[in-house]
Amino acid sequence: MITSTMQDDFQLTTTAILEHGARVYPGSEVLTWAPGGARRSTFADVATNANRFAAALIDLGVSPGDAVGTFCWNTVEHVEAYYAIPGIGAVVHTLNIRLKAEQIAQIVQHAGDRMIIVDESLIPLLAPVAGQLSSVEAYIVVGDADASALAEHATVHRYAELIAGREPTFEWPAVDEKSAAAMCYTSGTTGDPKGVVYSHRSTYLHALGTLGAKVTGFIESDRILTFVPMFHVNAWGIPFGAFLSGASLHLPAQYMTPDHICEFIKTERSTFASAVPTIWGGIMQYGQGKDIDLSSLRLGSSGGAAIPRSLMEGFESKYGLRIVQGWGMTETSPVAGMAWPPADIEPGSAEEMQWRLKSGRVTPGVQMRICDDDGNELPRDGQAVGEIEVRGPWITGSYHAVEVPEKFHDGWLRTGDIGTLDERGFFMITDRSKDVIKSGGEWISSVELENLLAASPDVAEAAVIGIPDDKWTERPLACVVVASGHEVKPAELAAFLDGKVASWQIPENWTFVDEVPKTTVGKFDKKVLRAQYADGDLEVERTR
Amino acid sequence: MITSTMQDDFQLTTTAILEHGARVYPGSEVLTWAPGGARRSTFADVATNANRFAAALIDLGVSPGDAVGTFCWNTVEHVEAYYAIPGIGAVVHTLNIRLKAEQIAQIVQHAGDRMIIVDESLIPLLAPVAGQLSSVEAYIVVGDADASALAEHATVHRYAELIAGREPTFEWPAVDEKSAAAMCYTSGTTGDPKGVVYSHRSTYLHALGTLGAKVTGFIESDRILTFVPMFHVNAWGIPFGAFLSGASLHLPAQYMTPDHICEFIKTERSTFASAVPTIWGGIMQYGQGKDIDLSSLRLGSSGGAAIPRSLMEGFESKYGLRIVQGWGMTETSPVAGMAWPPADIEPGSAEEMQWRLKSGRVTPGVQMRICDDDGNELPRDGQAVGEIEVRGPWITGSYHAVEVPEKFHDGWLRTGDIGTLDERGFFMITDRSKDVIKSGGEWISSVELENLLAASPDVAEAAVIGIPDDKWTERPLACVVVASGHEVKPAELAAFLDGKVASWQIPENWTFVDEVPKTTVGKFDKKVLRAQYADGDLEVERTR
Repeated sequence: MITSTMQDDFQLTTTAILEHGARVYPGSEVLTWAPGGARRSTFADVATNANRFAAALIDLGVSPGDAVGTFCWNTVEHVEAYYAIPGIGAVVHTLNIRLKAEQIAQIVQHAGDRMIIVDESLIPLLAPVAGQLSSVEAYIVVGDADASALAEHATVHRYAELIAGREPTFEWPAVDEKSAAAMCYTSGTTGDPKGVVYSHRSTYLHALGTLGAKVTGFIESDRILTFVPMFHVNAWGIPFGAFLSGASLHLPAQYMTPDHICEFIKTERSTFASAVPTIWGGIMQYGQGKDIDLSSLRLGSSGGAAIPRSLMEGFESKYGLRIVQGWGMTETSPVAGMAWPPADIEPGSAEEMQWRLKSGRVTPGVQMRICDDDGNELPRDGQAVGEIEVRGPWITGSYHAVEVPEKFHDGWLRTGDIGTLDERGFFMITDRSKDVIKSGGEWISSVELENLLAASPDVAEAAVIGIPDDKWTERPLACVVVASGHEVKPAELAAFLDGKVASWQIPENWTFVDEVPKTTVGKFDKKVLRAQYADGDLEVERTR
Repeated sequence: MITSTMQDDFQLTTTAILEHGARVYPGSEVLTWAPGGARRSTFADVATNANRFAAALIDLGVSPGDAVGTFCWNTVEHVEAYYAIPGIGAVVHTLNIRLKAEQIAQIVQHAGDRMIIVDESLIPLLAPVAGQLSSVEAYIVVGDADASALAEHATVHRYAELIAGREPTFEWPAVDEKSAAAMCYTSGTTGDPKGVVYSHRSTYLHALGTLGAKVTGFIESDRILTFVPMFHVNAWGIPFGAFLSGASLHLPAQYMTPDHICEFIKTERSTFASAVPTIWGGIMQYGQGKDIDLSSLRLGSSGGAAIPRSLMEGFESKYGLRIVQGWGMTETSPVAGMAWPPADIEPGSAEEMQWRLKSGRVTPGVQMRICDDDGNELPRDGQAVGEIEVRGPWITGSYHAVEVPEKFHDGWLRTGDIGTLDERGFFMITDRSKDVIKSGGEWISSVELENLLAASPDVAEAAVIGIPDDKWTERPLACVVVASGHEVKPAELAAFLDGKVASWQIPENWTFVDEVPKTTVGKFDKKVLRAQYADGDLEVERTR
């Protein structure tokens, strides 16, 4: 019996990532934007401060397995917390500052956060619920601003004071790679937010996996502008990928508006920017008639929602900037797919765009399949439509402190996304499973109808939901916001769709709304529309 | 106590690599060179054949933990064996066909290989020792050639027959990621060959780690010409990196001469080539006065020994081909460093070459330090000289079935290489620890003296060893092969070195030899020179 001689017990931890960054790329920078110019720090500084902060957390009584919340923008202190907290075996729980107060309270209590690190600018958002956060013993405030609203409820420490004067001689403890490192709750569009807990191992493997040339390709000369909030799935893992590759981090703090973003890129010559489509759209709009300089960017990445083709093409033609689309979710760390065209497609060719508009191509480390309602695997032929399931070392296999068996299937995560998968690992998401419309046993993609309707000049935006139908079980209802200054009739919109989808897929139920309700992360909130319809609050016109 | 929700028990195995390749890059190619044109195969074909071969091995009685040897060139069948054997939990033991017969016999017996897969062209090399291989129950011959010389000693199967007609419906078993996957013996320049056993985990992590843009940067459009034999540290892990990235494999089989290599590159448009300096030198020589086409190559990599600067510059000026140097050893899987210049160095600048001539820069996943004789860590300042130690998930922590405690130090592998390490992870190897010369408590680099002497037009090659000295404990002895048609005296060579190294480092002991003895992998065999000196077989002249 031959056995391995390798160091198989070498633990894949966030501290191993930190130390690689500090020992190989000590001079790589972490810049935090501020009006007038960025605050500058280096990987060596981050390692030093993380080391000090880790010692301080232990002094404050934080133990392995404890949750420590962060209520912060993308800043260097947040990066330090990313390493300090898991480095002592505790769990960095990134709180979504955009949630409603009650949701924040519910999540903090559910995770049992013992402390919360708060940016001074965010105290006003947190203070209203502080009274409800019984698990929280202390707040650690980054900045000098008045924190008396928090002090009423728990001890207040200042981050700068906690680390000041400490020698960075803390000895990082041994941590098991399968222990918890970080925690993030889903945004809860489909129900209560659920906690996903990343292990050291999953964090390390995800970071290593994202370095591939056809994932992010981060290298030391990169300067990565990270708009993706660090409270959304670890900012897509970028703070970890940066320390493994030596790429500098550009962090916008609270300055997320296009004017600041463009100033940041121009001043600090960012080479890579990651953002959701809304941010990309904002930059494009801001650049209308203005002379903005994006010439330093070698690549943009987009995720969180499908990016419109027009936006991709606009950045390419106007700024020579290529945007590559990625796919993932809180449950997948998140990178599970990147829509790089296949090698046999000529760059710049007409065909190329159809590949770039795919949701993604499965990245190394992730396995994907699609299944029908009965859980049977469907062909990977780019035609069959089913629920996308994934598994792998950085995919969640459960949720924190709650049983959700319907989200798993023989060890695979059911993503809740409906789409196709082809024989080369390209997948295309056509709908969320809860949004898909089942008409006479056939599926209708609400997303496809929405995109087609949005292309009409008469339409500002449109959401399509399924409503009960006696004959077909379910039929589509289109909820349309008419473009300002336009007038349009349902029959005209139905005619607009004619020839673009199969005729039976064209909605016969129409309603006009002032705006489509949205979630805190900007996605259509179809729960609300469905409830309005059920309550009889929507006035429905039929075209046949 | 928060615990991870991730799929931390997802096993990192070679079969997961194979399946990624087959499911995402089924059309990527594996080409095996033959005069007249390559044999063509795809990743899908390899997966199918590996599946068939795995089933055949089980039918033949191979069990988890068994060693199955390969005695093969770089061919598609060898790649299939790379996946089939570990896929059933057995261990693919790559045998170095260039070793002496007795060494091969010793290694096969030590590993206990139950079967050996043999290329038909290599039967004549293996047959002479077949009688000594008592652990071997069967030979699996790739090809139809006469195998009666093997059949006298064990059953002979034919690879093609074993897999023919089998449906590829074998269900890959669950395999623990820490179990043994592959095995390779060191070349034994410092003593008996020692067995290094790679786990599934180490193989997977190494493959994932090599995909980084500043490691190999393999992508789907690459076609990797792999001269590094698959019996040398898994061909540097390239067959695994290829299946994770989709890069096609170009395998030279037994056609390793420059004429075949150049024809292969020209015909199949290889984009990447990995080879030891000797092969690169052979190509350069072959191209003198001939019109060879290397235009498809985007990058070359070199390892196994330091590549001469002149060769790097020659490829760049003559063919526009950049060669990047890497460092590793059998014990390190092997990739532990790659000599990419740091980001602040202008590409093409004069300064750049000094970085490209470093032995490497520590790659993500590997930790490195240097220690003095007493095991104290030395400063990472690029000045202090000590033994290089490494650790990490793809570094060996022991050897197969033999205790070698002197090779390890507090969980780190002692590489036996002496050199410097700087604050950015660049390291420069100046000597093997057994070759370093200790003169009056100071170290003299034999490699540096050899390189300097080799630069003299009067010198064909030179090896420098340490010999006992009453006053200084040890002093250098230069063993020089005079260039053909030249004559030179020791004093002239000493004068040639003057000003190039500190005067006390200049050898005062000289001997002229017809050739420097070499190991099977082409390295200077200084053991032999030392023995010749000890036996009084070298005629030594003193210059002072």
